[in-house]
Amino acid sequence: MNHTEKIDILITGGTLLTLTDGMDVIDDAAIGISGGTIRFACPRAEAPESNPVETIDAAGCAVMPGLVNTHTHLPMTCFRGLADDLPLMEWLHDHMFPAEAKHVNREMVYKGALLGIAEMILSGTTTCCDSYFYESHVSQAAVDAGVRIVAGQGFIDFTPPDAAELGKKAAAAEKFISKWNPLHPMVTPSLFCHSPYTCAKETLQRVKRIAVEAGVPFMMHLSETKEEGEIIRSRFGLKPVRYLDAIGVLGGNTAMVHCNWLDEDEMDLLASSGTGVCHCPESSMKLAAGIARVPDLLKRGVAVGLGTDGCASNNDLDLLLELDTMAKLHKVSTMNPTAMDAETALRIATIGGARVLGLQDLIGTIEPGKRADLIVIDLRKPHLTPLYHPCSQIVYACRGSDVRDVIIDGKVVMRNRRLLTMDVQKAMDDVREIAERVKKD
Amino acid sequence: MNHTEKIDILITGGTLLTLTDGMDVIDDAAIGISGGTIRFACPRAEAPESNPVETIDAAGCAVMPGLVNTHTHLPMTCFRGLADDLPLMEWLHDHMFPAEAKHVNREMVYKGALLGIAEMILSGTTTCCDSYFYESHVSQAAVDAGVRIVAGQGFIDFTPPDAAELGKKAAAAEKFISKWNPLHPMVTPSLFCHSPYTCAKETLQRVKRIAVEAGVPFMMHLSETKEEGEIIRSRFGLKPVRYLDAIGVLGGNTAMVHCNWLDEDEMDLLASSGTGVCHCPESSMKLAAGIARVPDLLKRGVAVGLGTDGCASNNDLDLLLELDTMAKLHKVSTMNPTAMDAETALRIATIGGARVLGLQDLIGTIEPGKRADLIVIDLRKPHLTPLYHPCSQIVYACRGSDVRDVIIDGKVVMRNRRLLTMDVQKAMDDVREIAERVKKD
Repeated sequence: MNHTEKIDILITGGTLLTLTDGMDVIDDAAIGISGGTIRFACPRAEAPESNPVETIDAAGCAVMPGLVNTHTHLPMTCFRGLADDLPLMEWLHDHMFPAEAKHVNREMVYKGALLGIAEMILSGTTTCCDSYFYESHVSQAAVDAGVRIVAGQGFIDFTPPDAAELGKKAAAAEKFISKWNPLHPMVTPSLFCHSPYTCAKETLQRVKRIAVEAGVPFMMHLSETKEEGEIIRSRFGLKPVRYLDAIGVLGGNTAMVHCNWLDEDEMDLLASSGTGVCHCPESSMKLAAGIARVPDLLKRGVAVGLGTDGCASNNDLDLLLELDTMAKLHKVSTMNPTAMDAETALRIATIGGARVLGLQDLIGTIEPGKRADLIVIDLRKPHLTPLYHPCSQIVYACRGSDVRDVIIDGKVVMRNRRLLTMDVQKAMDDVREIAERVKKD
Repeated sequence: MNHTEKIDILITGGTLLTLTDGMDVIDDAAIGISGGTIRFACPRAEAPESNPVETIDAAGCAVMPGLVNTHTHLPMTCFRGLADDLPLMEWLHDHMFPAEAKHVNREMVYKGALLGIAEMILSGTTTCCDSYFYESHVSQAAVDAGVRIVAGQGFIDFTPPDAAELGKKAAAAEKFISKWNPLHPMVTPSLFCHSPYTCAKETLQRVKRIAVEAGVPFMMHLSETKEEGEIIRSRFGLKPVRYLDAIGVLGGNTAMVHCNWLDEDEMDLLASSGTGVCHCPESSMKLAAGIARVPDLLKRGVAVGLGTDGCASNNDLDLLLELDTMAKLHKVSTMNPTAMDAETALRIATIGGARVLGLQDLIGTIEPGKRADLIVIDLRKPHLTPLYHPCSQIVYACRGSDVRDVIIDGKVVMRNRRLLTMDVQKAMDDVREIAERVKKD
């Protein structure tokens, strides 16, 4: 390049973890961003001359792609820690569903989502995949806060749907998609069926068809508990993944959440159909739901992303902590310390998640041409000293509070741990007010 | 009381978690400290009038006993992240032992320990139990930094010891104990044998006898891996705990570290002999060593404390994160979400640890007469909002960086996250310098 490049943001001096296939780690790197796109990412000595509007000094820091949270229910931030240490079904039916029936409304959804987004940005997440009711209001919170979102309008059949009911569901799905697609670069609409045991076959097929026609992701909770598999088998005579395959809802831009109880055959079917998996280890540990066989899924080439699940069952949205727990959990559960190494864990939480969401060409690594979603982690702290291997340090020693700066779509949304896109104090006050009402129940 | 009490430090306005048997939670509490002792801990409205030298406003915060780390190797901070994702024996024999052989010296021990202590205080630990070589230098670092320590001089037989060798070990043990006992109120000397497979029977018995005679704790790694149990059985024809019982080293002020592979019979024997257990879940997950059956130990009345192990196998010393992982791990490994609730986890990390170390009359709860080891956790953060149950919030959502103030033995050692007893920058620089030498190997 023989002219001085116009660059909006130049990040210099940090250790760059590209998270590309070669897992390149570049000391004293330079990353140039303009128009929201990464223009170069290379050793500083090789960077083109540029005249940046803003320079971020990342000396002593790691620079890496923003984390991708493939599964959460952001408005449930309002119920964080409301009911803990309970079995999943009791937690869901005696606590969460009643609290939701009484307190979920557009205002609660927006305010809960906004606080959840604050927590996510503060801990280095730049893209999330959410599913809940009133998902347009979650999307609006994401747009206001500047986070990238795959927003899943949720579907559940509390009673078996008739044709009229199905027609209403289909209309709602189409309306939601057309509201956000392809209008907003930061919002990907998607459709989320609660599960094969709470959604009738007709609902699953109709919603899936709408997703396929609109070219948006389709998702579902699947095999979270062992009991769930037994329900499906007793109703349909098939293992859950076989059932979903038989009714034609696998493959395409589809991902299944949890997948704690798949056998070899079901994992093969996910792989051959190109269906992704959202892995939420902490939530499934806390609810004693099970442990997904992630190393076995990865061996088959299944795209696996990391998720926190709603923070009512976790109880936080900190993916840097989730990373660490994930790697350790798979080591001990397989009794093999090499079952998941730090690099694999970090890839699951970035490019793996991007693949699951169908965003792998846009985000998930740091390389020229991708959108500029990246985080700067300050490594100059006692618990991060000394530093032998940056990747290992990030997975096994970093926590969300070590993230210093966050850039999403080329915009600085957090600088020196200060959120620039929202009033965090107000976001906390708003949710506290909702919680006061919940406490009165 | 009809006179105004002389109080050094008054903490007001926080939510007090006493961690006493009744698990009292007191909103808007007042805690008075003088001469290093807790004088009162009660609702503010019921507090005696006092004229404090210093007042700490804990509004919006939780106040609880400082965390007790029952097992670590602080100088190994110098090797944090040096070798990850490896089997325990390869990690130990190909990486840790060689690095130790080359780099462990008095200076490394002091500097590594000091940085580890900085990390511990910053994450809310007020008492640790360490074991390593040159333990007097670890103790000195603890004294300088103002942290309470049970310091275990380490013993290991690389070759079978003869009488002269044993005599030298005994003399070293006695010298170490007499140096610190009962001279320093913050240091409890103790003796730590590496394990029953690396220490000869004669070494275990001799070191144990010296500990008993001096009235100091005796500790050992035990049944960390399954293979270890097989070694003991093949050498001595007994299961590990049976072997230790047969040679007379159980009971008294004794604790065993890890205990991942005990059967019913061995757990019974720990209970009946009054032997405690130091549980290090993250280290054993990361090394795929196993999962201690902590709920079963607790049912038998065994004293169980939490430990991080050395941060070369964890890779941090953050007990608030360890708490969370511990509770979730036991839920999923037993497939029972009630296997360990938040209160149990928090008690293991405080009063449980104090019991394991024989310090239960001194620390581990907040009540009048105990030494003032306590921490103030700032709950006014996005990831800690809203707040329904303080205990649950601390276990499932807090991380070390949420600890705002730390008081140990009545002295403020951290205020608003600033360490008052050491130069943290220098502590980091010193360890970085050591790491540069390690990297050259």
